[in-house]
Amino acid sequence: MENKEDGIIAENGKTEIPKDGSICGFDSLHRLLQSSLPPQLFQEVSRLLLGMNCGKALETLAIPEPAKSLSSKHDFDLQAFSFHAEKESLREPRIVRVGLIQNSIALPTTAPFLDQKKGIFEKLTPIIEAAGTSGVNILCLQEAWTMPFAFCTREKKWCEFAELVDGESTQFLQEFARKYNMVIISPILERDVKHGETLWNTAVIIGNRGYIIGKHRKNHIPRVGDFNESTYYMEGNTGHPVFETAYGKIAVNICYGRHHPLNWLAFGLNGAEIVFNPSATVGELSEPMWPIEARNAAIANSYFVCSINRVGTEFFPNPFTSGDGKPQHSDFGHFYGSSHISAPDSSCTPSLARHKDGLLISDMDLNLCRQLKDKWGFRMTARYEIYADLLARYVKPDFEPQVISDPLLSKKTF
Amino acid sequence: MENKEDGIIAENGKTEIPKDGSICGFDSLHRLLQSSLPPQLFQEVSRLLLGMNCGKALETLAIPEPAKSLSSKHDFDLQAFSFHAEKESLREPRIVRVGLIQNSIALPTTAPFLDQKKGIFEKLTPIIEAAGTSGVNILCLQEAWTMPFAFCTREKKWCEFAELVDGESTQFLQEFARKYNMVIISPILERDVKHGETLWNTAVIIGNRGYIIGKHRKNHIPRVGDFNESTYYMEGNTGHPVFETAYGKIAVNICYGRHHPLNWLAFGLNGAEIVFNPSATVGELSEPMWPIEARNAAIANSYFVCSINRVGTEFFPNPFTSGDGKPQHSDFGHFYGSSHISAPDSSCTPSLARHKDGLLISDMDLNLCRQLKDKWGFRMTARYEIYADLLARYVKPDFEPQVISDPLLSKKTF
Repeated sequence: MENKEDGIIAENGKTEIPKDGSICGFDSLHRLLQSSLPPQLFQEVSRLLLGMNCGKALETLAIPEPAKSLSSKHDFDLQAFSFHAEKESLREPRIVRVGLIQNSIALPTTAPFLDQKKGIFEKLTPIIEAAGTSGVNILCLQEAWTMPFAFCTREKKWCEFAELVDGESTQFLQEFARKYNMVIISPILERDVKHGETLWNTAVIIGNRGYIIGKHRKNHIPRVGDFNESTYYMEGNTGHPVFETAYGKIAVNICYGRHHPLNWLAFGLNGAEIVFNPSATVGELSEPMWPIEARNAAIANSYFVCSINRVGTEFFPNPFTSGDGKPQHSDFGHFYGSSHISAPDSSCTPSLARHKDGLLISDMDLNLCRQLKDKWGFRMTARYEIYADLLARYVKPDFEPQVISDPLLSKKTF
Repeated sequence: MENKEDGIIAENGKTEIPKDGSICGFDSLHRLLQSSLPPQLFQEVSRLLLGMNCGKALETLAIPEPAKSLSSKHDFDLQAFSFHAEKESLREPRIVRVGLIQNSIALPTTAPFLDQKKGIFEKLTPIIEAAGTSGVNILCLQEAWTMPFAFCTREKKWCEFAELVDGESTQFLQEFARKYNMVIISPILERDVKHGETLWNTAVIIGNRGYIIGKHRKNHIPRVGDFNESTYYMEGNTGHPVFETAYGKIAVNICYGRHHPLNWLAFGLNGAEIVFNPSATVGELSEPMWPIEARNAAIANSYFVCSINRVGTEFFPNPFTSGDGKPQHSDFGHFYGSSHISAPDSSCTPSLARHKDGLLISDMDLNLCRQLKDKWGFRMTARYEIYADLLARYVKPDFEPQVISDPLLSKKTF
């Protein structure tokens, strides 16, 4: 997998083609189109690619000075937008400010584990501060944020990064939650000592007063590419909880769960208004799918989807193979960042950079969720009865698909 | 809804901005970007927007001369592509050539109904011939192709267009099916005389020898915008049939059913390899959602999705309102065409024109479906048991969502 991280964004913010002719290191699709198309064309392309929020172009938010200054000093991408909803007669707007953080790891994977973890804590501190001083209400970090995404290695030493739900990283974040009155979603590798040291891929939900509201464990575990997560942990056993916080009803669909429309649906049926999708995914494996699945989930379930992907390439001490016949190698590919937010009206924000740490901030009026439900009526026209029946039949070993064969066929086509 | 159909595509195929500055009449997003971006940038934008088929750029197919000549003579858009799949060791490739037709109506809606229907038959004949002479194996027409999409009016006189499953339009198409050894999917307004003249929105599946294999009735009926289809017909009662034809296992998800991930899923669980989505949808209501939902369905279910939308603006004799407080009007908005095909590997074809009749042809190796199932394992990691259980509980009136409230919350947030 190619990974060219340098020399693509010039000082003036324009996209430049590197000398070798490759452009796969470009910064973001949105900025690439914006700098390459005449303004009128860009506007129309944006209408189709990003949707129009209630018929209006997405607004950018003014970023508070302290956050701007932290972003310059610590060199992270910082973008802020605002989704619009119609004014209602009987409900006040319910505007929530959400923040998403994407980042690369801080130290090489060969550094002592404690240093690696502390390095990430230190690296994230100014970005979390930028969110806090910008008045973010709900902040979400990326999947397994306390560690490199080491599951590709299949080595068990990385299990040392697993923590209790109320462990060190939670305590680190609880301080910020209290300081900024901010709900924080913290996706970690969890060690469940009450169940014989079981490991889980878990999101801890810290309330705005620093209290742990609850946790959710990743429902679907990939068996694709180099993920190898099924070597480390099993499918979650926490159902599809929706957490009722001071700022609205939220849920967490961790990483690979985004490929499962039923997983998205279940959070919707339980009443989620914002579903966070902290992820770790690479290059050609998933990049064209990345905006499709998130936006579809937001549309189909009339809620906001907040997508986060980590950034950069992580090299591991011992090489491993990918099961594709290619030579052994020591990296998992390029985590392409591109965190973004999708709204139920099919609009979405531009993405954060593909190669850089970043904080994406967005205001959203949660009233938009019900407005879209009333407009499109997907829940009301969904006929869940027939699907409950179908799935109940499908899960039985003797399920027979509903197939009508052309009677003139001489043999089966499959 | 704005509708500027003229003066946008210049003779040289380049996109031009009309004098009024509007570009909402542009031809297709793909062609707009192709003519506006440097080739290298266009290639990278295509990688993200259209995906890469198994890591390769989508191939264009050489179009046979007779089809080309019909397309020039009768002025319809004609494009042809080929999806690639890996060569397997134990199965031969199963390459199927699919054709999709999008078209505007032939005569004003004020013309005698019989003339309107005959006008469409005549208009479609050269396009169907072009498909037949190009060796298309499976051809699909647009939703309710025999008539204007008159459901916006709420007038019952348009019910006259309803036909028996083996009625006039089926007989018209059976001739072509036999002549070209071609499966044809014919979406019509169905009159079910065996059930007291019940009307349905139905797709008739005509086998390659002209025999009617079966029918499927639209599962989900919209209650949004000007569709007003629920005035005319009810939710279908044919389940989610997959039709085993000489060229593979196909299904039909009619129009609004594309907003329902469970509907797509059900065709997948029954074994579909290609799902056709004949539609009629307009402008700002759905255009940004159009490619998202189709591509997501193809990815999530590891099958091909063939999306068809009708073309043009249809004006009706008696004005009607849209329930949005705006003045009465006599058109439903602009049907934006943009028919396209999405593959299970997240790649897709460019779209047909937004303003013009068209035939989209594509080869696809159906082996790609199982290849993607083996790669991603979505079926195997889907945990259908928990969703069967959830839906069974959800459909009960006393369903209680799984909500975990912050214990420090003073009041409910909803």
